[in-house]
Amino acid sequence: MFNQPHAPYGHSTTMKSSLCFLLAAKRAELAELERLAQSIALARSTAALVHELQRERGLSNLSVRHAGMGQAPLDAQLHQQTLGTDDWVAQWLLESEALINAPSPHAARLLSRVAYALQGLDALALLRSRVAAKALSTQRLSADYARLIASLLAVVFEAADHASAPELLRPLVALFNLMQCKEWTGQERALGATLFASTQVHAQEQAHLSELIEAQQRCLEVFESFASAALLQRWQERQRAQPLIERSRLRRLLLQTPAGGALEPHLSGVWFACCSQCMDEMRPIEDQLTQALVEQASACMAQVQAEIGQLEQRQRQPPEADTERLRGSAFFEAAPPALQPAPQGLAFGLERSVLDLVQEQGLRLQAAATELETLRVSLNERKLIERAKGLLMAHQQLDEPAAHKALRELAMNQNKRMVDVAEAVLSMSHLLAPRR
Amino acid sequence: MFNQPHAPYGHSTTMKSSLCFLLAAKRAELAELERLAQSIALARSTAALVHELQRERGLSNLSVRHAGMGQAPLDAQLHQQTLGTDDWVAQWLLESEALINAPSPHAARLLSRVAYALQGLDALALLRSRVAAKALSTQRLSADYARLIASLLAVVFEAADHASAPELLRPLVALFNLMQCKEWTGQERALGATLFASTQVHAQEQAHLSELIEAQQRCLEVFESFASAALLQRWQERQRAQPLIERSRLRRLLLQTPAGGALEPHLSGVWFACCSQCMDEMRPIEDQLTQALVEQASACMAQVQAEIGQLEQRQRQPPEADTERLRGSAFFEAAPPALQPAPQGLAFGLERSVLDLVQEQGLRLQAAATELETLRVSLNERKLIERAKGLLMAHQQLDEPAAHKALRELAMNQNKRMVDVAEAVLSMSHLLAPRR
Repeated sequence: MFNQPHAPYGHSTTMKSSLCFLLAAKRAELAELERLAQSIALARSTAALVHELQRERGLSNLSVRHAGMGQAPLDAQLHQQTLGTDDWVAQWLLESEALINAPSPHAARLLSRVAYALQGLDALALLRSRVAAKALSTQRLSADYARLIASLLAVVFEAADHASAPELLRPLVALFNLMQCKEWTGQERALGATLFASTQVHAQEQAHLSELIEAQQRCLEVFESFASAALLQRWQERQRAQPLIERSRLRRLLLQTPAGGALEPHLSGVWFACCSQCMDEMRPIEDQLTQALVEQASACMAQVQAEIGQLEQRQRQPPEADTERLRGSAFFEAAPPALQPAPQGLAFGLERSVLDLVQEQGLRLQAAATELETLRVSLNERKLIERAKGLLMAHQQLDEPAAHKALRELAMNQNKRMVDVAEAVLSMSHLLAPRR
Repeated sequence: MFNQPHAPYGHSTTMKSSLCFLLAAKRAELAELERLAQSIALARSTAALVHELQRERGLSNLSVRHAGMGQAPLDAQLHQQTLGTDDWVAQWLLESEALINAPSPHAARLLSRVAYALQGLDALALLRSRVAAKALSTQRLSADYARLIASLLAVVFEAADHASAPELLRPLVALFNLMQCKEWTGQERALGATLFASTQVHAQEQAHLSELIEAQQRCLEVFESFASAALLQRWQERQRAQPLIERSRLRRLLLQTPAGGALEPHLSGVWFACCSQCMDEMRPIEDQLTQALVEQASACMAQVQAEIGQLEQRQRQPPEADTERLRGSAFFEAAPPALQPAPQGLAFGLERSVLDLVQEQGLRLQAAATELETLRVSLNERKLIERAKGLLMAHQQLDEPAAHKALRELAMNQNKRMVDVAEAVLSMSHLLAPRR
């Protein structure tokens, strides 16, 4: 009675099903890449928009600082700049609305960041009217633009955080760090200009300046370790540009003048122009990076689409009945689903067994997951440190560089890594009374 | 010329957009929960199917071991069991096919695991025919069923690995560990039965037995730390059941008899029945756990759906024009997007500002992400350890418990954690020649 094993799901049914699931897995990969391509398009617009906002902040700063003195040409320039910014706001809105049309799982955080950045763009009109009325200090102006830009940078960070393909995560991490570095440069520009204009050096502002310079250095280190060789070469060529050399000279003046010493106010404008040029120098690198990202995303999608085509072709073939027993026994005899990535990548040839295809797909996904985990360590550490800094900023009324310094000193005193100190700070967060 | 700031994207447009993005974020959360609910339904069927396969393995073992001696009633029982297994195979196929219909991003790995498990179910017919022909040893039989069951356990592990809601991740981790523990119990059952039947104790098999017992202990520790209080209480009540006490007594016999000493062969059947009862005792706990998971997933979806309803109602209201300036300035003056979860959860009341809603949504998602990261540490460590064990198994021809022991000894000798040793092993993987 037990000679013919009972099997309501026949061999060919499940064999076919295996291929169906492989195909579905490939289509899921494609859907994920399409979502990622949208995030990349948004990141590209964000980089352009942030650059416009940084220029607008610079001109607004000059306009407020030099109120009354030869105002008209500057205001005309500023007006022109706001039009340029608004073009990119419109473009950015278009890109972000594309995300709404196909709300995909795992997109909740990205959409939530976009919602917050929109609040910031919404507040831009008010900020501009205050600039026009000279109704705020340059410090306040810089801080307000910085907050708006931070809300946009968070969108790029989130896009990187959700990238599921290592080949796209790497350039996204590089992009975020380059953008963050440029933003610290912008904040250094404002602070240095204030320092020169004040004609006297204050120790506290000097310390703040060193922290901003250090923050740029940290971002560049990550950028350099994640950027492609071609990009890195172009980046290093740009490092010999004149504005960078000039900035180094002016930085030394700012940092090495003894506290209480005098600075020449006319250098304020020189410093400002030179920092602006440094920021402009970074923009084409950003652009090259986002262009490469867009192309890489297309290449990944084309590759997965080709694999889908091959699997579909395979699915149309009739199963080979004579190898039935062989296939069943292969499941028990092959090496277990396994641990080493296939060295030569996937080949979906028609002569391969479905078991081979299934195992290779598993291997490839596992290898990608392992690589992603490794790459994400740097993102996760950053997240912990950012969260701990945010906590200190909220509860100790510190700004970002000061909060960073506080964490760093904790780490140095305890001989621990920044990320461990950040974790310790976060674990004590319930002890700190909320500020609001 | 600059008194009226230029704003091509009007206030109410972006204010409305912010709400749209919040809504889209909520809908993305819902889509994610729906996907997770499907994985949970599949995990539930998997638990039931694995239990049937474990029973079938037990009866097949007896059938092969006692070939010829009063075979007919046993074979009838086995045949009945295969029918029961097949019912669950059919159910499992239905649940897994539901995953195909809506291939969602991030599902690629789950689908790939399902494809591999299908290959195993496909090979089941061959395995059964070998059992019917008594054409394999009980060791080989156990190993083949173990591989099939491992491919199904991997589906549950993957479902847990992709859970994006902490309240669902916890019970999924508990479920996986309970299932894995039950499977080690099944392997202990087979090994102990062989030991009793062989009438003589071998030191090597005793060591293997201790490792299997230890592996169960490890799984139970994780299970106990992730299970709900209600489940834990029920679990602990079951720990006083008679079969468990009996198993402890027989385990002592197996482990404490000196190598080369004699065992009573008639205890083989007693041991087998007692271990089977222990496994049956675990099944209602699994069932309660999966039932709670299904209910929790529904509750989460209902909650998000209610929030979507409130946001939609809010969206239909006209924006309040008089608070326009106030809102713009709130972006710059509120605490930065922030760091502490809202203590009382979200309230989508109509009186709240959109900025408040956006910030709270951001906080809540961030808090959930932080909790997920913490919970995942145990999963990630497990993954590293599993991968390192797999490497040792492939290259040193070890079985799982022996590979575990090798890792543990490395860790003890170097005074490091298992996970650190696992990482070190993986980093040296390229030095090991592939086995195939």
